[in-house]
Amino acid sequence: MYEKIKDIVCKANIELHSLGLAPFTWGNVSQVDRENGVFAIKPSGVPYADLTPEKIVVVSLEDGSVVEGEYNPSSDTPTHYILYKEFSNLNAIVHTHSVNASSFAQAGREVPAYGTTHADFSYTSVPCTRALTEEEVKTEYELNTGKVIAAHFKENGLDVESTPAVLVRSHAPFVFGKNAGDAVHNAAVLEIVAEMALKTEVVGGNVPQIDKYLSDKHYFRKHGKDAYYGQK
Amino acid sequence: MYEKIKDIVCKANIELHSLGLAPFTWGNVSQVDRENGVFAIKPSGVPYADLTPEKIVVVSLEDGSVVEGEYNPSSDTPTHYILYKEFSNLNAIVHTHSVNASSFAQAGREVPAYGTTHADFSYTSVPCTRALTEEEVKTEYELNTGKVIAAHFKENGLDVESTPAVLVRSHAPFVFGKNAGDAVHNAAVLEIVAEMALKTEVVGGNVPQIDKYLSDKHYFRKHGKDAYYGQK
Amino acid sequence: MYEKIKDIVCKANIELHSLGLAPFTWGNVSQVDRENGVFAIKPSGVPYADLTPEKIVVVSLEDGSVVEGEYNPSSDTPTHYILYKEFSNLNAIVHTHSVNASSFAQAGREVPAYGTTHADFSYTSVPCTRALTEEEVKTEYELNTGKVIAAHFKENGLDVESTPAVLVRSHAPFVFGKNAGDAVHNAAVLEIVAEMALKTEVVGGNVPQIDKYLSDKHYFRKHGKDAYYGQK
Amino acid sequence: MYEKIKDIVCKANIELHSLGLAPFTWGNVSQVDRENGVFAIKPSGVPYADLTPEKIVVVSLEDGSVVEGEYNPSSDTPTHYILYKEFSNLNAIVHTHSVNASSFAQAGREVPAYGTTHADFSYTSVPCTRALTEEEVKTEYELNTGKVIAAHFKENGLDVESTPAVLVRSHAPFVFGKNAGDAVHNAAVLEIVAEMALKTEVVGGNVPQIDKYLSDKHYFRKHGKDAYYGQK
Repeated sequence: MYEKIKDIVCKANIELHSLGLAPFTWGNVSQVDRENGVFAIKPSGVPYADLTPEKIVVVSLEDGSVVEGEYNPSSDTPTHYILYKEFSNLNAIVHTHSVNASSFAQAGREVPAYGTTHADFSYTSVPCTRALTEEEVKTEYELNTGKVIAAHFKENGLDVESTPAVLVRSHAPFVFGKNAGDAVHNAAVLEIVAEMALKTEVVGGNVPQIDKYLSDKHYFRKHGKDAYYGQK
Repeated sequence: MYEKIKDIVCKANIELHSLGLAPFTWGNVSQVDRENGVFAIKPSGVPYADLTPEKIVVVSLEDGSVVEGEYNPSSDTPTHYILYKEFSNLNAIVHTHSVNASSFAQAGREVPAYGTTHADFSYTSVPCTRALTEEEVKTEYELNTGKVIAAHFKENGLDVESTPAVLVRSHAPFVFGKNAGDAVHNAAVLEIVAEMALKTEVVGGNVPQIDKYLSDKHYFRKHGKDAYYGQK
Repeated sequence: MYEKIKDIVCKANIELHSLGLAPFTWGNVSQVDRENGVFAIKPSGVPYADLTPEKIVVVSLEDGSVVEGEYNPSSDTPTHYILYKEFSNLNAIVHTHSVNASSFAQAGREVPAYGTTHADFSYTSVPCTRALTEEEVKTEYELNTGKVIAAHFKENGLDVESTPAVLVRSHAPFVFGKNAGDAVHNAAVLEIVAEMALKTEVVGGNVPQIDKYLSDKHYFRKHGKDAYYGQK
Repeated sequence: MYEKIKDIVCKANIELHSLGLAPFTWGNVSQVDRENGVFAIKPSGVPYADLTPEKIVVVSLEDGSVVEGEYNPSSDTPTHYILYKEFSNLNAIVHTHSVNASSFAQAGREVPAYGTTHADFSYTSVPCTRALTEEEVKTEYELNTGKVIAAHFKENGLDVESTPAVLVRSHAPFVFGKNAGDAVHNAAVLEIVAEMALKTEVVGGNVPQIDKYLSDKHYFRKHGKDAYYGQK
């Protein structure tokens, strides 16, 4: 029943590792199937070399319980669960500890939009959430991580489609996509964009963000109904 | 009729990707054939792994229209088009978002010529254009990008042969060459030279540029009629 | 008699080199066998490509003498020896000169715990010892290196299980683990965490360390009796 | 007659390229044969992929003329020539434009000895020469490059054995070794040591150099008659 989505999610997890974005067992990818009310996600702590579609865990969108699979799902599963609940237009999630993006998260900073490489990928800067409170960390930590992300998006009028990545303060990025492969792609682009932002500041100091009209041009060249990048 | 140039341009695009200068579908290479009044360029958004000479698009130098090919040409085609029109001695163009060079572009800075590695490659520092105006971005953006580059070269007495690369402010580099392969080579050298400039400033602070007589020596050791580097 | 431990230590040394953490003949891995009163360690200066289990040297825990093996053991053997003597719960040691961790050692600084990537790996920041005195360097240098590490842990109430790595000032890291493979894993994580700390400071300046309650949450999610990361 | 040295020099040049220290046709390796009064060196501008022992050029130590080989020798041949003349204990030379070492050269700075990784390799910091004068650049540039290196060593009481690398200001490193392979090894170590020095300054600011007694210990652990690193 869930063969197709398990296969997609398995491939995307392996791709994440191949791209160097998830060393060891770090990082996880999920994709939702709203029709069947589930999402598929990486099992916890399983090395990527041993990953097969059979080991992918299927989780209920209703209560976060395991629907299919013999392995424990990723320990970050409640974060994925609450994000799928909070954002009805969210299709896939990637979590990594990629070095450059995580460095901004550790510094408690958004990744500023300094150029067209950023604008091609995200309509806004990549936001950074507030820190979780001691209470939020001690009880239902992973669920609260998702809630803090969702609250940040709502309070700031952001959308997971036009803002496809977020940094959790003192932690690391969560990245979104149209499907698991697209979310992995966005995780890779985020890491490049974060490295570029760091180096822009090293050579330029206090650099202004990209002009809104240039950012709009690049974003809508690639996204939305008037996009003209790529093939029809 | 255009088999040879399509083959050359295909190979150069694949080389650009292999060198790590164009992840995903980013970046594009073109080469002109002035005798036949056309240039050949990468199709838009096609992954490098799927690229074949048949998919390369041939564009008219007269009006920028597609002469041969079933794919949409790169969305940056009008930039290439206007540059070939403006510079009669220009043979090939590469566009990348390589990290170090783009970081200087995002900071709105030229890449200073700090040493002989730079001088071996370019007679001048690598210039950075002004930002495009809102008007220039909203109407014929890609064409205006080329016009802003051309204006910068004319106003500053620069030539695409002795200054084989330029940064478009808030964007990324465009690189020139004697042919597509040479332009790809120059794009790779630019990225090394930009990394070296960044690190020179990190260890040295406010470093003076290379002495003119040393830069001349290195540039003319490799370029022009008195060059003595390499084999006859 | 020592076949199994020699095989484990050989594999772990080769893995260390494959991960890029020990170029040339740099770096060494050992694992202890307390039941038999020995530890196995890399031979000195032997290239990783030539390493076989037969070349691994077995050393007595009693007096540090060679028990089995035709090669000289690593010149850092007395450091390993004294650390196994001083810490009865220590099972395996890795020594590298990995670039980012060694840069903190050269600067005489601990690696601060800036985020959850660090907390997943170590319960504390990665400490940096005092410099060895001239006397300590001139006589029994390698033994004294281990003694200075041990003294630092004791004076600061640290334990090699919850603090699995230490920097020796002006030198480089020593890393600990449950077994040789785990110590190599920790050496790789340390290098990532050190790079992330460096970049966190570059983008964030004077950044506070991670909140204790968040650090605790991540550390105990992966370590100890209440860990819930991974499979049962 | 020169088969053996041509083979050694060919292999060492290819190794230099494999290590990523000489992209494209940059960089060159030579080794001297004092008995026969010659040295063997890479041909100028030949891609490493096309390099064979037959293409290696043999040059006279007497007058710098080509003794054997159909190719032009490296354009840096006069630098190698004069260094072999000036230093009777010099056996092999490598020239690269490796990024981190060249960044210090461009900043006009020596690479400070911040730790034991440096001391394992060089007895002193890696010096940086003065700039060449306009006169020295315009006439016999490559020969004068070698003369400026030799003068720097003499004026500062340095020796090519204990100081196996030097930076030419605004240019890049020249590296020495017991043979071509050893010089390539030293060129690789220099690049690591330079990266570590840069990062040490980024995390530590104004860091003191390593204590002399610690540097001595590490240097003489690996070099000279009392060395005890490695196998007998």
